[in-house]
Amino acid sequence: MTQATDARFMALALGLGRRGMGRVWPNPAVGCVIVKDGTIVGRGYTADGGRPHAEPIALAQAGASARGADVYVTLEPCAHHGETPPCADALIAAQVSRVVIATTDPDPRVAGRGIAMLRQAGITVETGVLETQAQQDHAGFFLRVTRNCPFLTLKLAGTLDGRIATASGESQWITGPEARRAVHMMRARHDAVLVGAGTVRADDPSLTVRGLGITRHPVRVVASRTAQIPATGQMAASANDVPVWLCHGPGADISAWEAQGARGLECAVRSGEIDPVSMMGALADQGITRVFCEGGGMLAASLLAADLVDELVVFTAGLAIGAEGTPALGPMGVDRLAAAPGFALKDVRRIGADIQHRWVRRASAPEVGIAGKKPL
Amino acid sequence: MTQATDARFMALALGLGRRGMGRVWPNPAVGCVIVKDGTIVGRGYTADGGRPHAEPIALAQAGASARGADVYVTLEPCAHHGETPPCADALIAAQVSRVVIATTDPDPRVAGRGIAMLRQAGITVETGVLETQAQQDHAGFFLRVTRNCPFLTLKLAGTLDGRIATASGESQWITGPEARRAVHMMRARHDAVLVGAGTVRADDPSLTVRGLGITRHPVRVVASRTAQIPATGQMAASANDVPVWLCHGPGADISAWEAQGARGLECAVRSGEIDPVSMMGALADQGITRVFCEGGGMLAASLLAADLVDELVVFTAGLAIGAEGTPALGPMGVDRLAAAPGFALKDVRRIGADIQHRWVRRASAPEVGIAGKKPL
Repeated sequence: MTQATDARFMALALGLGRRGMGRVWPNPAVGCVIVKDGTIVGRGYTADGGRPHAEPIALAQAGASARGADVYVTLEPCAHHGETPPCADALIAAQVSRVVIATTDPDPRVAGRGIAMLRQAGITVETGVLETQAQQDHAGFFLRVTRNCPFLTLKLAGTLDGRIATASGESQWITGPEARRAVHMMRARHDAVLVGAGTVRADDPSLTVRGLGITRHPVRVVASRTAQIPATGQMAASANDVPVWLCHGPGADISAWEAQGARGLECAVRSGEIDPVSMMGALADQGITRVFCEGGGMLAASLLAADLVDELVVFTAGLAIGAEGTPALGPMGVDRLAAAPGFALKDVRRIGADIQHRWVRRASAPEVGIAGKKPL
Repeated sequence: MTQATDARFMALALGLGRRGMGRVWPNPAVGCVIVKDGTIVGRGYTADGGRPHAEPIALAQAGASARGADVYVTLEPCAHHGETPPCADALIAAQVSRVVIATTDPDPRVAGRGIAMLRQAGITVETGVLETQAQQDHAGFFLRVTRNCPFLTLKLAGTLDGRIATASGESQWITGPEARRAVHMMRARHDAVLVGAGTVRADDPSLTVRGLGITRHPVRVVASRTAQIPATGQMAASANDVPVWLCHGPGADISAWEAQGARGLECAVRSGEIDPVSMMGALADQGITRVFCEGGGMLAASLLAADLVDELVVFTAGLAIGAEGTPALGPMGVDRLAAAPGFALKDVRRIGADIQHRWVRRASAPEVGIAGKKPL
């Protein structure tokens, strides 16, 4: 196989793997392609809920053709006996001749052991094909395993002047239907959707994925120190169907929410608010690898100030509201530009009547970041 | 000539005409191309200061070849004896056979008379070729002639959350050098650059065009009801070289600025501030057709609230400052989304590390617009 051919099949495996994003936590969303004599004989990606893994699905599809084949997998095959036998064993048993791996697994239970097992069985192993892309795709899983913190995408949707509601609180339909549709797709690609208590009180959102034919919803997480939110809205009413987790401070009474089927996660409090680092740790403890925060402005500001935001997705509508409007970001305690969290542009596009711009975390200025979640 | 050929030569004439933008006020920036037997024999565009016009320049270049030629001109040739003889007469004298005009002139002294003169002389006249583009290019001239109000471009440059300075006032270098270079080019394409008094006090800007090899600068206009700005900064020091106009309210003492070479334009006051409609009228009275406003937030908000902004150019940097920062727009008195000034996306692009997005006025909601400057 040439390098170009390897990259082509790995790109396909990565594309397959991404289909599992938001559906496979606490496991990584892995893709696998098996190629025999230049023909694809098996494909697989991690199934909903995280099992089966991508490799056994692809091997089952390939059947006897797997013998002597090339296997492309986006993450090092697992080597430990969990609830399923190790994928490395399955590849050995199928007598494949070569395994191409995009990136190794930082999980200490795997961490090179999968590769060692394969090589010991006489299988050729190559690594590092499209590694950067694979590390981006698996960033949530890696961050959870190595730092007990999920990958965090923060969405901001507002006017040209960065406002998300008028002074009277009107906020619906600032952005158009195309942008809202994109938001639903983004929800589906994350394990959990996160909002602050103020947003629940003001908007009573359902935070489910709608209009896309997708029936699997992310966990809905509400950050509220006191948990003093009436358990009477859309989320409470549907908590038995789609999980609702309340991240609250010590001593909060969540019995009304629990009665509706919601769960509580106790987090530390800092400066009178939920400590965002503690909250991210609590979500990682539950197996969450990818979080999509949709505001409000106070929560968004606290996540940015704590240097926890890995990707920012901004939707900007062609409206001007002026300074009386609610700002997209609350106070951040930034008084010098050098201390402001910085992001590098990933892409920008027109979406309906609005624009969508995505930004990824830049290496922070030294004085930024109480959490110190640095780029991978 | 085919329609496609006509459009091609007119596009060339429009491109030539745009070279005069910001350099020819109070006249329109017209372009002219003369074609004989499929070959371009003359080109011209309105010269600096507005004279000579495009047509005599192109005719002089064409010489005897103009006889029997096709002339493409972006605006109806003038028919009145001003400081130069009418262009319609010059075209007749040159014995051209056909004149193709992008758009007619709303100036009541011309308004169809140029076309009538040409036709009376036996010249074939066609109109409406690339008319929409021509009307956009000449919008400043048209607005001044028909409504005594220049075309107004408002620039906003800020962070992802719409802030233009930190709480401590730090505002330099939010956007990168590529965006700043684009701003200098935009200044050069406008007759006047406009800022509020707060911006002059805070930043002491020079507002000249720099770094582009352009030596002709726009008039620098400062809006200040009281004119209580120390006449000691960069603008005052250079007021004899590049004009500085102070738009002030009744009774303001502008003697210190006048001593430096600046001029005063008295404007009406509304709600304790310069009335933006009165200010635009005062600039139109002076012959200004295109204004580029660079803030600050109070002035920008008052122009938007008065429905005077024709185009918005926004530069967004990958930084988050939070709610303590200075907002790009001050209070606008908008409490319902339906009353917020709306803009349609023109284009969006990456510029250095930032994005640039341009928006054009949308038909306003009925309740918007004290000035009622509707789209052309």
